[in-house]
Amino acid sequence: MARFRFEIAAKDGAARSGTIVMERGEIRTPAFMPVGTAATVKGVKPTDVRASGADIILGNTYHLMLRPGAERVARLGGLHSFMGWDRPILTDSGGYQVMSLSDLAKVSEEGVAFASHLDGTRHMLTPERSVEVQQLLGSDIVMAFDQLLPATATADEHAGAMERSMRWARRSKDAFSGKGAIFGIQQGGLDQALRRASAEALIENGFDGYAVGGLAVGEGQEAMCGVLDFAVPMLPAERPRYLMGVGKPDDIVEAVERGVDMFDCVLPTRSGRTGQAFTAHGPINIRNARFAEDRDPIDPGCPCPTCTGFERAYVHHLVRSGEILGPMLMTEHNLWFYQRLMQAMRDAIAEKRLAAFAKDFLHRYSSSRGA
Amino acid sequence: MARFRFEIAAKDGAARSGTIVMERGEIRTPAFMPVGTAATVKGVKPTDVRASGADIILGNTYHLMLRPGAERVARLGGLHSFMGWDRPILTDSGGYQVMSLSDLAKVSEEGVAFASHLDGTRHMLTPERSVEVQQLLGSDIVMAFDQLLPATATADEHAGAMERSMRWARRSKDAFSGKGAIFGIQQGGLDQALRRASAEALIENGFDGYAVGGLAVGEGQEAMCGVLDFAVPMLPAERPRYLMGVGKPDDIVEAVERGVDMFDCVLPTRSGRTGQAFTAHGPINIRNARFAEDRDPIDPGCPCPTCTGFERAYVHHLVRSGEILGPMLMTEHNLWFYQRLMQAMRDAIAEKRLAAFAKDFLHRYSSSRGA
Repeated sequence: MARFRFEIAAKDGAARSGTIVMERGEIRTPAFMPVGTAATVKGVKPTDVRASGADIILGNTYHLMLRPGAERVARLGGLHSFMGWDRPILTDSGGYQVMSLSDLAKVSEEGVAFASHLDGTRHMLTPERSVEVQQLLGSDIVMAFDQLLPATATADEHAGAMERSMRWARRSKDAFSGKGAIFGIQQGGLDQALRRASAEALIENGFDGYAVGGLAVGEGQEAMCGVLDFAVPMLPAERPRYLMGVGKPDDIVEAVERGVDMFDCVLPTRSGRTGQAFTAHGPINIRNARFAEDRDPIDPGCPCPTCTGFERAYVHHLVRSGEILGPMLMTEHNLWFYQRLMQAMRDAIAEKRLAAFAKDFLHRYSSSRGA
Repeated sequence: MARFRFEIAAKDGAARSGTIVMERGEIRTPAFMPVGTAATVKGVKPTDVRASGADIILGNTYHLMLRPGAERVARLGGLHSFMGWDRPILTDSGGYQVMSLSDLAKVSEEGVAFASHLDGTRHMLTPERSVEVQQLLGSDIVMAFDQLLPATATADEHAGAMERSMRWARRSKDAFSGKGAIFGIQQGGLDQALRRASAEALIENGFDGYAVGGLAVGEGQEAMCGVLDFAVPMLPAERPRYLMGVGKPDDIVEAVERGVDMFDCVLPTRSGRTGQAFTAHGPINIRNARFAEDRDPIDPGCPCPTCTGFERAYVHHLVRSGEILGPMLMTEHNLWFYQRLMQAMRDAIAEKRLAAFAKDFLHRYSSSRGA
């Protein structure tokens, strides 16, 4: 069985479509990974996550190490068995959440000391502990531990954090058991020279795949695409490239055109819980009073269980009434929307018409007829 | 097609099993009706409600008339189309909720004036309006509007409310269009003479089925069974008998033995949201720390999607973490538990072994090995 193999089946400009072959299953690329923060893609059963077209989901090291605990998950047979998902799982390193969610995070060369946002207990994440936690969970794709910076960081701080992240990437790889795969993460903010140095350091260590980190933190789509224009080609063409934490549907289309193969984002699930639904004509807020007697499905033409079974008026009622079924139906639709977008891009790349697809999609999506 | 036909297939002591045949489908009796308060059985998709074995669900007139509104539901094609449930729906009359949920309820011979618990708007429910609302919703089984009393009511108040309820039952039937079926509700508290007078008044008007109202309001199982012993035989044997708002699994077993055919209760759904799961050995609270690493399913031997797909440790984690999937999985299990209990009783009645089944069930259920 393949530990990890990336097969590129088609190219169209900088974009590629293909398959990542792993022991637990194949991942069609470009791929979108729904986020299963605390061992659940919020509001959707694993069988329904799979039915939406997801080949792989993401688990959060930070959340799982705090509750229910990595050692406990390991005793219970690992994350796949625990949550009833037998296909690949990518785990993040916890580096992002220790900086954004925990209290009193303190960074040293050793790692990050922090207090749990749940109960204030003190913990330490180091490259070695992050990889250990991910392997206790039974992760298929382990992410190297890196240092995240606030958007307000100075150029010097960016250089320092990038260099430390590269030392941590080496320590992460040294701690990795060889079961499954491990990805390195390019840092360097918006700076081309730092991105170059980061890519070179990662390549020298050698990883199964390469992520672009430190984007989608408020810099805006134009700045992000500007970085992708130079940062993505620095990463080995024969390895999967993963843009972390991205993003909105239009962000994903722009990034696929620039050669990115993998994505994750809480947007389809989180939006589903706040009343935002994705449609071919842009996002809509189902709470809006104009949907109270709207008998169309959320996204006309969508083949998902929500759109084939229920009208906007009903989902509007559920969400307005605070009924659990509201987020359930909204989230399931949003997951299908994202997976259908990925499938449409894989088809477009195979048929060398991605540019036309992207232009058409972005035009329709920004028309806001839905909004 | 049959408007309403009740076929008794087997009898065992006072208990009966059979089928209610209606246009929208057959209802196997004894039947348990999951409660779909606000046009949703909370936390479960309609397809999954059906898969649990439910032939009919209950909708709440009070909740639906306030939100989204009966006229709105009618414009949207009726409750079945709105919520995606094409089988029979029984609607209550709103009589219980106007007294228990609304503010400033004021009872007169005309009906009950009250203020919405949602926004304080003033409304009036009369027998005529209750039946109109139920028919706007498209109810298959309409319930007569009755007057509910607090548990502290005096004997005189009980007599007065029963007599008024019987006048209201006649007005309800007069307002009924003849589409679907209408049930009358026996009142009279714990008093045998009042129950007798109530049954006679209802029978004189003639209803498709007869409910026992005013029980399960805090009187305890022994008192309730005492009333059922004399009250149920007062109701026509050839018509379905419905014990409203009951109840715990052991209450249902006791009532089936006394000749009751239909039940509804929020217990399986509400309990599912608070962490209580039903098992053959009694209820358990999945939040209990001893389940943190328990790899059994919630109820070993249960064939439901929750028990075949997930372990107690996982559901414990979900519920403790406040994840939506927790109530989803718990509620689905509880619905299956109730429907499996009803099927087991239908089988036992057909095979004339209900007494042995009930003894065995109640012994195991109260053993609390699960708790």
